[in-house]
Amino acid sequence: MSDALNVTQKLIKSHLVDGEMKAGEEIGIKIDQTLTQDATGTLVMLELEAMNLDEVKTDISCQYVDHNLLQTDNKNPDDHLFLKSAAERFGLWYSRPGNGVSHPVHSEHFAQPGKTLAGSDSHTPASGCLGMFALGAGGLDVAFAIAGEPMYLKMPKVLGVELTGELPDWVSAKDVVLEMLRRYDVKGARGFVIEYFGPGLDQLSTMDRHVIANMGTEMGATTTVFPSDDEVRRFMAQNNREDEWTEITADEGAEYDEYEELDMSEVEPLIALPSSPGNVVPVREVEGKEIYQSYIGSSANPGYRDFWITSEIVKGKRVHDEVSLDVNPTSRQIIQNMVKNGVMLNLIQSGARMHQAGCNGCIGMGQAPASGRNSLRTVPRNFPDRSGTKEDAVFLCSPETAAASALTGKITDPRDLEDLYGMNYPKYEDPEDYIINKEMLMAPPENGEDTELIKGPNISTMPEFDDPSDFEVPVLLKMGDNISTDEILRAGADVLPFRSNIPEISKFSFTVVDENFYERSVEAKEKHGGHVVVAGENYAQGSSREHAAISPRYLGQKAVIAKSYARIGWQNLANFGIIPLEFKNPDDLDGIDQGDHIKIENIKEQLKNGSDITVTNTTKGTTIKTLHTLSGRQLQSLLDGSVINAYKKQKA
Amino acid sequence: MSDALNVTQKLIKSHLVDGEMKAGEEIGIKIDQTLTQDATGTLVMLELEAMNLDEVKTDISCQYVDHNLLQTDNKNPDDHLFLKSAAERFGLWYSRPGNGVSHPVHSEHFAQPGKTLAGSDSHTPASGCLGMFALGAGGLDVAFAIAGEPMYLKMPKVLGVELTGELPDWVSAKDVVLEMLRRYDVKGARGFVIEYFGPGLDQLSTMDRHVIANMGTEMGATTTVFPSDDEVRRFMAQNNREDEWTEITADEGAEYDEYEELDMSEVEPLIALPSSPGNVVPVREVEGKEIYQSYIGSSANPGYRDFWITSEIVKGKRVHDEVSLDVNPTSRQIIQNMVKNGVMLNLIQSGARMHQAGCNGCIGMGQAPASGRNSLRTVPRNFPDRSGTKEDAVFLCSPETAAASALTGKITDPRDLEDLYGMNYPKYEDPEDYIINKEMLMAPPENGEDTELIKGPNISTMPEFDDPSDFEVPVLLKMGDNISTDEILRAGADVLPFRSNIPEISKFSFTVVDENFYERSVEAKEKHGGHVVVAGENYAQGSSREHAAISPRYLGQKAVIAKSYARIGWQNLANFGIIPLEFKNPDDLDGIDQGDHIKIENIKEQLKNGSDITVTNTTKGTTIKTLHTLSGRQLQSLLDGSVINAYKKQKA
Repeated sequence: MSDALNVTQKLIKSHLVDGEMKAGEEIGIKIDQTLTQDATGTLVMLELEAMNLDEVKTDISCQYVDHNLLQTDNKNPDDHLFLKSAAERFGLWYSRPGNGVSHPVHSEHFAQPGKTLAGSDSHTPASGCLGMFALGAGGLDVAFAIAGEPMYLKMPKVLGVELTGELPDWVSAKDVVLEMLRRYDVKGARGFVIEYFGPGLDQLSTMDRHVIANMGTEMGATTTVFPSDDEVRRFMAQNNREDEWTEITADEGAEYDEYEELDMSEVEPLIALPSSPGNVVPVREVEGKEIYQSYIGSSANPGYRDFWITSEIVKGKRVHDEVSLDVNPTSRQIIQNMVKNGVMLNLIQSGARMHQAGCNGCIGMGQAPASGRNSLRTVPRNFPDRSGTKEDAVFLCSPETAAASALTGKITDPRDLEDLYGMNYPKYEDPEDYIINKEMLMAPPENGEDTELIKGPNISTMPEFDDPSDFEVPVLLKMGDNISTDEILRAGADVLPFRSNIPEISKFSFTVVDENFYERSVEAKEKHGGHVVVAGENYAQGSSREHAAISPRYLGQKAVIAKSYARIGWQNLANFGIIPLEFKNPDDLDGIDQGDHIKIENIKEQLKNGSDITVTNTTKGTTIKTLHTLSGRQLQSLLDGSVINAYKKQKA
Repeated sequence: MSDALNVTQKLIKSHLVDGEMKAGEEIGIKIDQTLTQDATGTLVMLELEAMNLDEVKTDISCQYVDHNLLQTDNKNPDDHLFLKSAAERFGLWYSRPGNGVSHPVHSEHFAQPGKTLAGSDSHTPASGCLGMFALGAGGLDVAFAIAGEPMYLKMPKVLGVELTGELPDWVSAKDVVLEMLRRYDVKGARGFVIEYFGPGLDQLSTMDRHVIANMGTEMGATTTVFPSDDEVRRFMAQNNREDEWTEITADEGAEYDEYEELDMSEVEPLIALPSSPGNVVPVREVEGKEIYQSYIGSSANPGYRDFWITSEIVKGKRVHDEVSLDVNPTSRQIIQNMVKNGVMLNLIQSGARMHQAGCNGCIGMGQAPASGRNSLRTVPRNFPDRSGTKEDAVFLCSPETAAASALTGKITDPRDLEDLYGMNYPKYEDPEDYIINKEMLMAPPENGEDTELIKGPNISTMPEFDDPSDFEVPVLLKMGDNISTDEILRAGADVLPFRSNIPEISKFSFTVVDENFYERSVEAKEKHGGHVVVAGENYAQGSSREHAAISPRYLGQKAVIAKSYARIGWQNLANFGIIPLEFKNPDDLDGIDQGDHIKIENIKEQLKNGSDITVTNTTKGTTIKTLHTLSGRQLQSLLDGSVINAYKKQKA
């Protein structure tokens, strides 16, 4: 490492408490802030309770309620009450239901240049927009961070992306990150932090950078960072926090492990086809397809500007008769500014449906499209069925593209608005007297330690898991590349309310892949003591939900054998005692079929060796070699059955 | 009947096509307009399809989408597409999802003094606020009205309510109708039209009258009517429809079958305790109870004023830390006026959660309260579990009471705001330049008859039903008084999406009363060919959902024996071939237990006789006498198995 540091290196170096900054080595870093949302946070709070934590050890920890807002029965509101009581008990901030989506609200009110943030949500890197090192993680890792423990990860490489050129009209930040996804697909940035720099930054506001940092997750990046420059100072000043600003830029002569140039002048309106954020093509290639829905909002286009540009495009017109224009404001603060500056009036007048501030349809909580219809969304993900509708067809695009298409009723390149409506590209300027609203962000009380945790009838305790033993079990599923946590344990309005209840939510494991998985797993556990699955590259990509590890584990899953893993998913498997094995020879996946029986003997000894684990396919009479890449620390907790067991053992 | 007519008599007389205007006799009246909403409308459209209707025969029929807006999967949006296609095919107006709640939108844009309206929603009487005769009915009755058939009902008596005195500060229309409910409870107005008149009317705007007319349903009234006076003219002028106004008032010397005086100066803030709209007490009696939620909206407090007064009360303050203030704007039009006039800004600033325009939590589609917590709502109903939460505690009150309580965190008499906050009662005046928005009300196309009906995978056809035969079957349930259709077939987010699918929705029959009803009914049908239930007074009150008849019938229900029935529920039972029997001696209910077997022989002959039907309790070895009060027309369709069978037979 040269003496001249890039922003990523500066942020890691200033927080390093364990390990060496050598790519691929495990490092431990001090965490300054944490973020939890409700769909993952209830488990985090139960974990803090299990750990007997007295008080948060971070500078700031904030519990958001943004995912489960529908409240179709007692489960969501019971979770909210539980989270509020836990926030008071342990000393977290509490962002009340309807206050807004965690990432942009955090960026506005808490995020700080030069600090670290760990969040139990895979889009936590969004706060990298203001020079912060922001990591998504499984809930348990965030619980440890709240308790003052370091966050462990493999030292990433740094991909330096130099932004040059001038963004054309009708092209915006979302198109920039879609261009990155076109180049890197959903696993091209694994093992990397993406660091943006260069003259093109001047054209991107902090919230534009938030769009780009947010969706770095979709490329598998460890996180994304931007420098903290004058634009960040302006943003923080707008949020009455200029005093918390510090400048952080790469040193003169800083180097990157890899380098990429992105000439923004060559970016055109882009769109990700169903059902992967990596299926990116120019809008021109698919224009004319009829759409059912145009969906604005989510942490991937959360800025006031994104709603403003939508309203400017539809102003004085009427959305197409066949299109539902669903607008999901990011936060209470943004609603207020929308109301004050005419954005809301334009949207409603044009026919938009206005929803409460929150994640909503992005996570399948409402606004599902009709069967067999196309939905255009500004959200970060379009994994299969995530919208709530089976065999859905969700496209990801910019607000410009979504708004233009809402008017015409079909996928439309927004540049065509010039001809269609004689429209010039509206040039955004921040409104004067931007309203700041922190009213529903509740500070932790002075003396909260005696607060009783309020547990509704749906809130269960964490199940306990045994340490690993030799097994011979069936392969319940054989899957391909890029299986997401949405496929392992889907979201949606019928599933999310059980996020605090492992026995119940486990019944939804792998239903996207196989509707009978639950029944088959129960049978396999009874007959054979458990089961495994096999998969291709980048297993467990996407959302950070640790339920995608805990639930299969609860059903008896012993191991996964895959060609490779996504970072957070891999860590969650290890945390909860599912052995994440990798094929030494990736072609060996071809030799395993669903239903084959897989045997591992002398398992603890083999795991300690690690690089040469023998797996016997007793059905086919073949033997293959596998390995794991767990750190010594991770291996120990795996041998203890779970990281919670390890923690308890250590404290005992 | 004297020559001097009251408003009710004028409206009926001008539309009478069958029968005599003698109280209790069946009359048929011509229907000028119909209203259907999505939760009942999908069946209506399937019924129109079954009837081979070419085009609506009414002046105006409008299909609203206001109930099922959550779209947690494909079912709701598939229903919307189906309804839109059916509206085009048959020539109905179509009010798009998110455009607003049917009743107030209908009152604003379609309702006309002197006309009749039939709606497949029990709160259709709300449009009685402007001198209209507006009837709630089962879907099939509305389908017949759309097809140009008369609507049949028993000629009601008229209860004249003279409004006198001046409403005190902090008391509003909701308190007036709660006072009526305090006097009449949930069945005291059965067989009556409630007609308001007198000097007190001057203090009630058309939308205030809408509040009162809407909740006449809760007293069991056939409908509620107000005169069409200068205030109605003003309201219609505001909605650009002054040319459609005509004056309709009671003739000098008109008489009423019963008379009641309501001195508004003596009304105080009132509240209906869980779990019946009839449990009315002064707010003072229950003040101080902690609340979880304060809910504003629904067809029972839909006026712009209701949102304005809420915003005036919370303006510049913050809702209590423990309270979720859920605001449900009535319509797109009202949202616009809220935005334009600062109402929205005040509400959001104070901490309100703003939801899309629609019925929402009123019908259990979201916003359920937490377990064991109190919810204050301005909605019309608080039947058990209707909120979505089991064993809920929902209170009904005015916006003034709900807003005051949202600030203090406990049930609060709004008059206390004067001392608590030094507040004077805000005096409402209509905003200047009130915005009118009909953009999302789509007129029927010129040539819609070739439109293909779009049926998603969840949209089933209507099941067919046999004509009645002798039976000996078990009594599956013995129930008390005032069993509502919410208890027979509940609403809620898990049930409503199946409103187009009888086989699926029937599984939820009576689950509020007995979670195992479905399994028991399947067993009884297999073993005994069917089953019955017995109940007390006012069976099947509440919502007009015909699913509360079709679903039990689909499961094999042969008859209900009750002390008495609510009008719409009774009509639905008869329409779908469940025999609605009444005890000749009400005490005979005591002699029947759940599980007893009930036998009826020579059933068709006995039904034709009608007034002396022998029912044998073979378990107890007893015999009782029952009767039915069906008209000859109804009896014939019952003998044919259902009114659809009768219609088909007649057309064949």
